[in-house]
Amino acid sequence: MTGSAGDPRLSLDVARQALAAQPFSRLLGTRLAAFEPGSATLELPLRDDFRQQHGHLHGGVLCYAADNAVTFAAGSVLGPAVLTGGVTISYLRPAWGRLLRARASVVHAGRRQAVCRCDLLVVAEDPAPDDGTLVAVAQGTVLVSGQPTQA
Amino acid sequence: MTGSAGDPRLSLDVARQALAAQPFSRLLGTRLAAFEPGSATLELPLRDDFRQQHGHLHGGVLCYAADNAVTFAAGSVLGPAVLTGGVTISYLRPAWGRLLRARASVVHAGRRQAVCRCDLLVVAEDPAPDDGTLVAVAQGTVLVSGQPTQA
Amino acid sequence: MTGSAGDPRLSLDVARQALAAQPFSRLLGTRLAAFEPGSATLELPLRDDFRQQHGHLHGGVLCYAADNAVTFAAGSVLGPAVLTGGVTISYLRPAWGRLLRARASVVHAGRRQAVCRCDLLVVAEDPAPDDGTLVAVAQGTVLVSGQPTQA
Amino acid sequence: MTGSAGDPRLSLDVARQALAAQPFSRLLGTRLAAFEPGSATLELPLRDDFRQQHGHLHGGVLCYAADNAVTFAAGSVLGPAVLTGGVTISYLRPAWGRLLRARASVVHAGRRQAVCRCDLLVVAEDPAPDDGTLVAVAQGTVLVSGQPTQA
Repeated sequence: MTGSAGDPRLSLDVARQALAAQPFSRLLGTRLAAFEPGSATLELPLRDDFRQQHGHLHGGVLCYAADNAVTFAAGSVLGPAVLTGGVTISYLRPAWGRLLRARASVVHAGRRQAVCRCDLLVVAEDPAPDDGTLVAVAQGTVLVSGQPTQA
Repeated sequence: MTGSAGDPRLSLDVARQALAAQPFSRLLGTRLAAFEPGSATLELPLRDDFRQQHGHLHGGVLCYAADNAVTFAAGSVLGPAVLTGGVTISYLRPAWGRLLRARASVVHAGRRQAVCRCDLLVVAEDPAPDDGTLVAVAQGTVLVSGQPTQA
Repeated sequence: MTGSAGDPRLSLDVARQALAAQPFSRLLGTRLAAFEPGSATLELPLRDDFRQQHGHLHGGVLCYAADNAVTFAAGSVLGPAVLTGGVTISYLRPAWGRLLRARASVVHAGRRQAVCRCDLLVVAEDPAPDDGTLVAVAQGTVLVSGQPTQA
Repeated sequence: MTGSAGDPRLSLDVARQALAAQPFSRLLGTRLAAFEPGSATLELPLRDDFRQQHGHLHGGVLCYAADNAVTFAAGSVLGPAVLTGGVTISYLRPAWGRLLRARASVVHAGRRQAVCRCDLLVVAEDPAPDDGTLVAVAQGTVLVSGQPTQA
């Protein structure tokens, strides 16, 4: 990622390029639905190979989405040189639908780090008629890095 | 998953069947390397499409592996009817190698839940000559469920 | 704690009695400022003996307040027989002021558990002229217990 | 806190002075039982005013002890200029006894942060004849700060 000269913040286009440059996000088909200073929304059309053994969405897909949405939300204010420190996710209910939406916002950003919260929603249709059902919530910390590193 | 009659604990074979029944784990190529009462080790040969934009292992792969290893470790004592409540992961350093190993153990199991810790290591070769480099640590809670549900 | 017959939810009065029955909360001087179905606000007038060695509010006071506010918010919907499973707190900035306010709300409550978020604010005056400065955020899980137990 | 010139690590004596300089730890009576590079153990003789409404140890005392033990363990390798980023605690069982012991160790320390784990044990006697019963586990992150700040 490269921010505009003199402005650490990223545009939607640059952020979409960063997401497209993640092989793992391409594998899963993630798209960046919204990106503004202080927030980011990722969307993931759900495929049968995202399930666990009982037919629900695998928790690992949810925590991938939380991790990545938190990182992009933090990047919207900290710039591209960030390092995700950690994420806590709480699963609320078994989930399935057509689309997973991970909506992260920055709670606080300082010089050294940003703390974000993330709502994970599943919607029955894609495009989604509504916000969807909340299936997990997360909280994460993203550090300013000397150089661009870990998503 | 189905445990043996009268014994909520799962054998390695049954646990491997449960893992093989997870489409998301098949997509990523996860294998169950060890499974005993109180612990489980998952291994994931690393592929280029697990990277993020700077070439490191995507944090989402790490938290998927932590989530799943914690769930299997808890299942080794609680049985197959479990529901993962939540996971906290801390990333220690950017990671790359040939193999990701997620080693989870049960810290405490009661009638209602188990709490587990997980070490995430990356090894340079597969099969691995050593334990590898610790790249993340996690802690998670798994609830006993009335019926088999969320991985 | 005892809820009304036939209603697991607690009134403000009953919740205040529960708080007053906690010796540790009496030691710190915590009061229950608000209590409604789905949320609870604790307030703690700050004393010099709540500081750490650099004069800021000790992180342990913040996590006590987060833990307790999350438990009361969950109790507002789950009833008095609850067991706090765990709490994650992220500190945002060094804090000092006249009053600590811990405002927790239930994100999701099921039959078995509730997940809550909590904002921790410090205000310069008591009574507080405004919401105060956000100094930490938390997320916690509270389990329904067979019998009233751990705060 | 002040480390020795040229060595960011703290001696047991200096660490004990730092703990004694925390008014909140003096209020609770915390003592530093062990302090070596990479680990720290805090002990807290339990008093009746540390209970919650059902007679158990208040969760807030446990998370205070976890927060502080994690910070001291990190300080043993990072030096005194640290800022605790966040802590996750999982409660395992209702607790009571004569002494609370919080034993934290550094899992990884880099230039910018340390990640620690902490075991919280309650012992029936003080001095303790054995390790005690594990009642909670925690994981926390401590950041290197430009200047000494938040405990």
